[in-house]
Amino acid sequence: MKITKDLYQGSLTLLLDYYQLTMAYAYWKSGKAEEEAVFNLFFRKHPFNGGFTLAAGLEYVVDFCSNFKFSKEDLNYLGAMKNQDGSRVFDKAFLDYLKEMDFSCDIDAVEEGTVVFPNEPMIRVKGPLIQCQLLETPLLNLINFQTLIATKAARINLSAKGESVLEFGLRRAQGIDGALAASRAAYIGGCSSTSNVMAGKLFGIPVSGTHAHSWIMAFPSELEAFEAYAGAFPDKTTFLIDTYDTINGVKNAIKVGLQLREKGKEMLGVRLDSGDLAYYSNEVRTLLDKAGFPDAKIVASNDLDEHIISSLKNQEASISVWGVGTKLVTAYDQPALGAVYKLAALKNSKGEWEPKIKLSQQSLKINIPGYHTVKRFYSKDKAVADMIHLEGQEYTKGSLVIIDPSDQTRRKRIMPAFYQEEELLKPIFKKGKKKYKLPSLDEIKVKAKKQLDSFDKTHKRLVNPHLYPVGLEENLHHLRMELILKSKEENGAD
Amino acid sequence: MKITKDLYQGSLTLLLDYYQLTMAYAYWKSGKAEEEAVFNLFFRKHPFNGGFTLAAGLEYVVDFCSNFKFSKEDLNYLGAMKNQDGSRVFDKAFLDYLKEMDFSCDIDAVEEGTVVFPNEPMIRVKGPLIQCQLLETPLLNLINFQTLIATKAARINLSAKGESVLEFGLRRAQGIDGALAASRAAYIGGCSSTSNVMAGKLFGIPVSGTHAHSWIMAFPSELEAFEAYAGAFPDKTTFLIDTYDTINGVKNAIKVGLQLREKGKEMLGVRLDSGDLAYYSNEVRTLLDKAGFPDAKIVASNDLDEHIISSLKNQEASISVWGVGTKLVTAYDQPALGAVYKLAALKNSKGEWEPKIKLSQQSLKINIPGYHTVKRFYSKDKAVADMIHLEGQEYTKGSLVIIDPSDQTRRKRIMPAFYQEEELLKPIFKKGKKKYKLPSLDEIKVKAKKQLDSFDKTHKRLVNPHLYPVGLEENLHHLRMELILKSKEENGAD
Repeated sequence: MKITKDLYQGSLTLLLDYYQLTMAYAYWKSGKAEEEAVFNLFFRKHPFNGGFTLAAGLEYVVDFCSNFKFSKEDLNYLGAMKNQDGSRVFDKAFLDYLKEMDFSCDIDAVEEGTVVFPNEPMIRVKGPLIQCQLLETPLLNLINFQTLIATKAARINLSAKGESVLEFGLRRAQGIDGALAASRAAYIGGCSSTSNVMAGKLFGIPVSGTHAHSWIMAFPSELEAFEAYAGAFPDKTTFLIDTYDTINGVKNAIKVGLQLREKGKEMLGVRLDSGDLAYYSNEVRTLLDKAGFPDAKIVASNDLDEHIISSLKNQEASISVWGVGTKLVTAYDQPALGAVYKLAALKNSKGEWEPKIKLSQQSLKINIPGYHTVKRFYSKDKAVADMIHLEGQEYTKGSLVIIDPSDQTRRKRIMPAFYQEEELLKPIFKKGKKKYKLPSLDEIKVKAKKQLDSFDKTHKRLVNPHLYPVGLEENLHHLRMELILKSKEENGAD
Repeated sequence: MKITKDLYQGSLTLLLDYYQLTMAYAYWKSGKAEEEAVFNLFFRKHPFNGGFTLAAGLEYVVDFCSNFKFSKEDLNYLGAMKNQDGSRVFDKAFLDYLKEMDFSCDIDAVEEGTVVFPNEPMIRVKGPLIQCQLLETPLLNLINFQTLIATKAARINLSAKGESVLEFGLRRAQGIDGALAASRAAYIGGCSSTSNVMAGKLFGIPVSGTHAHSWIMAFPSELEAFEAYAGAFPDKTTFLIDTYDTINGVKNAIKVGLQLREKGKEMLGVRLDSGDLAYYSNEVRTLLDKAGFPDAKIVASNDLDEHIISSLKNQEASISVWGVGTKLVTAYDQPALGAVYKLAALKNSKGEWEPKIKLSQQSLKINIPGYHTVKRFYSKDKAVADMIHLEGQEYTKGSLVIIDPSDQTRRKRIMPAFYQEEELLKPIFKKGKKKYKLPSLDEIKVKAKKQLDSFDKTHKRLVNPHLYPVGLEENLHHLRMELILKSKEENGAD
């Protein structure tokens, strides 16, 4: 699907921070607009104190870049911007330049459904400095959110240990596509359905849902409400049993379940949306079993997340379907992934890539300089380490050491010759032309599952996970250290 | 603006939870679809442990309802849904019914920019049960998010005590309109500008921004980068000074500031985006003052929220413009407002409103039954109490007691005759026809300011606020208690 066409009318090109336009203008004024640059989009820390991150959102980026063009209305809006003295903020000639500008960057990116780690380029943009700069914020917006939610969904699905997780976060999501994009990312991360019918229609995600408390309240009694619902959906009866009293509720459900059985239909299950889920699920299970409904499922909802699901499983709650909303679609305990987009290299007048560094008082925030890429090494389908290295830089296939960029003392010796290697960055655009066949959402979901399976379970532990080794190839490490020290000296940094 | 037209193509009518459709179908099958119902949208607890909530999002609701119509594509999608045995989920006759359905509800709502409290109806929908039910989730999605962000923005602006707060959250926002709607709500809540150019174009919000670290890194030195920026924007120079070293950075800014002054231009200020803001802002202030730039402003950013701004103010940091992003647009410490949408009354065959109650083991979650509304009493422009009462219910203008629905022991005696009173719910739609002139965004912003000013400052305290009195008029309180006890008895609730 085309996000810009199906969801938004016209141009999304102005979905950017104003400073990108002021910089674009100033680059243009300074004659630097067409200098060739490389920017990387990466994050510095896994969300949720976790041990992995699941990439998502690339399809939106592809759609955005494919439609990257300033519209007439966009240019009129920018042309009408005035300084305090009444003069135009942006020269007409600059707006003409924007008007003629065609997207011409190379973009390489990790595919959706790939497990990624801090400091690894998720998207690498190479092209005219002005275009690279204009892409900054839209790319961050689209990748940050979907990657965050896909990761959250993967964690929740891991906690459910293969049982169905239904996403129903629309009502509490952050805006319209805060819901739609979340439904998409949640499906990638392993959820089996969404409640959001528009997400079902747009993305082909299975939709699910039964009835609300208001359904029960609209009838003289709960029993009559269940009977009416069973009349409309005899094959799809999951009764919400906690409108008035859960135990009385399951007894009413059983009555209707027996009526259904007489007609050759089987009650699917019941849903609990409040109260102590550990206690009530077991009470309800006992009643259902005694009444001859051992296959009726118990669906639970009510502010669930991976930690509560794990806890309920530890308490042997009798729940086999998990409805997850707010905590999933808003990534409640960490509602933003802090991915950034940083200049890594600029081509000099001799046509050489000059690596670029940004200092910071927090060493975590110093970027990886240079035109670089990332490889993953596998041993028999198990990922063993990721290496970030300069494009075109030779490295030994024998024994080499990779060095963690955020902690030099963490190093790992690897023997590339013994492993299969995978280039994580795939070509998406070449000089502005799309070179990538977008996989279907189901293909992405399958890929995500396979990727997650390729990592040791200790990396996927919800709390205090085992750190997966990611490091800089030695030459890149040395280059980085050298640049840091040189830049500190030149800029009098303390 | 028309959100559905300008932002989204075609119909948003399927932006709902699937269970609304299954209930709609079952209501239709049960012959209950056209029964007249009243639903209320309300929340149970202020976000952020605060003492007030600022309503926002109504314009989106008006747009949604004005365009409420199942499109051909919507109906084709629903028509293609199949049961496991291959039969259609929804009868063709039902889809024809949906196709012909025209929005015909009454909607009353608090205006955007109104301060609201727990349990008060923010939106009241009266009309055919099926339509009321179909509006549930879209209304919640649109109101929950914008109200959350407007409230967060109001808190942040209160902490800045009248100084400018710039919103620049696009890169970390939850999706495309997670950003756009947040920029709108942040402006309502008091922010003076957004970084999001598309929000500027769509909503007319002023945009602001200067340059990023990448601008500095694209030049051989920071000084040259500042000079180039000053060349392009001599009237708009706010230099980002922390790319390499903050103190060295401000010295470079001063050099360029002096060059500008020779040309009759004045440096506007500098921006700090990292490091200890309390320490560096004062060091930078001293250097700027000594160099003859007492009017140059210091803009600060870096994960700010109301608590950090308050703390920086307490530490007498020399900051006068606050750039706020992630923590504002995602409402980081509480990324969802838990507003709900509950059936309050159903008209019986005698044409009388029958109040409806939903029990819960958490008494906080028991709704306010009946077709009710809410009044605010003012004494000389100061809000003194809000009273929720049944529509058409007489109450004394002398001395009456209002009772907090979540704590019966909290009661307040008020004398309506001594106060001005305001009906908080305004008519928005009558029988599906719009009766409300949408205010401009600037009018809403002004209203929000005025509303906030009408509450005592102790209600607006960021931590442990003084509770503003909101209560049920006595008749409604008694009705509610009676219904709770009756329903508990009938349903065997423990």
